[in-house]
Amino acid sequence: MKLVIAVVQDQDSNRLSNALTKGNFRATKLASTGGFLRAGNTTFLIGTEDQLVPKVLELIKDNCRSREQMVAPVSPMGGNADSYIPYPVEVEVGGATVFIMPIEQFHHF
Amino acid sequence: MKLVIAVVQDQDSNRLSNALTKGNFRATKLASTGGFLRAGNTTFLIGTEDQLVPKVLELIKDNCRSREQMVAPVSPMGGNADSYIPYPVEVEVGGATVFIMPIEQFHHF
Amino acid sequence: MKLVIAVVQDQDSNRLSNALTKGNFRATKLASTGGFLRAGNTTFLIGTEDQLVPKVLELIKDNCRSREQMVAPVSPMGGNADSYIPYPVEVEVGGATVFIMPIEQFHHF
Ligand code: NI
Ligand code: NI
Ligand code: NI
Repeated sequence: MKLVIAVVQDQDSNRLSNALTKGNFRATKLASTGGFLRAGNTTFLIGTEDQLVPKVLELIKDNCRSREQMVAPVSPMGGNADSYIPYPVEVEVGGATVFIMPIEQFHHF
Repeated sequence: MKLVIAVVQDQDSNRLSNALTKGNFRATKLASTGGFLRAGNTTFLIGTEDQLVPKVLELIKDNCRSREQMVAPVSPMGGNADSYIPYPVEVEVGGATVFIMPIEQFHHF
Repeated sequence: MKLVIAVVQDQDSNRLSNALTKGNFRATKLASTGGFLRAGNTTFLIGTEDQLVPKVLELIKDNCRSREQMVAPVSPMGGNADSYIPYPVEVEVGGATVFIMPIEQFHHF
């Protein structure tokens, strides 16, 4: 058994949850902030058999990978709306930081 | 030293806290959701000497074990109250998922 | 790589965050309560290279060490204000409990 600790952005959290459930993996979610990623993230604790670790990593990668996204800019509050041209802006979203930890014992009561 | 990570249902959380304190164990509690157990659970981090791990496991088992419980059903909202017979329903409550993790160093400042 | 899990008092949390960022360490913060320290604490997850573990420990020690602090007592609510002499009281604040955990794999997507 291994414990997979994955820190992912909140916006990818539900999609990863669903993918893990569909793959028969069980995860506990902790609300977390800052640091590894921009503020507002979720820390997943996923206990799994050794041979399924690559499958968990694949699910995390597929659902949380860092990628570019075109975002409509926020219109200027109280600004000169006539001269405002809303160029979409490319921002980096997603990303995951993952630790695979050894487990000495696993119990379920 | 080991780090015991235990995910338990919220309804068993206070009882386990008290039992750990009484047994001179120190625990940090993290609010968590989903996955290992039904939504609304608490993740305990318990640092302990190797030889006391069985005692911690016993406390978790005694206070959080999965068990059947008779629950009075919720009365039907706006339903036909005359024909409503409130049979108690047996549901499974409690349960704990526990990981025993190796620690390389422990410090207290 | 190691995973440093540090439980510190809320009042030291921001100072430690800033010190870690300044030192180029990345940390994820989890809101936690009770146990190792008095209620209201923060659990830091800090992934770091083996050779930098002493530097992380030094930052935690410098920013969170348990120390005595003089605290002005709360004035008695509705008490006899004339006879009330506000002696400052010495209380212990801060403190950190730190676990250094082995990591088998580290991934960043
Ligand atoms: Ni990144
Ligand atoms: Ni179960
Ligand atoms: Ni202490």
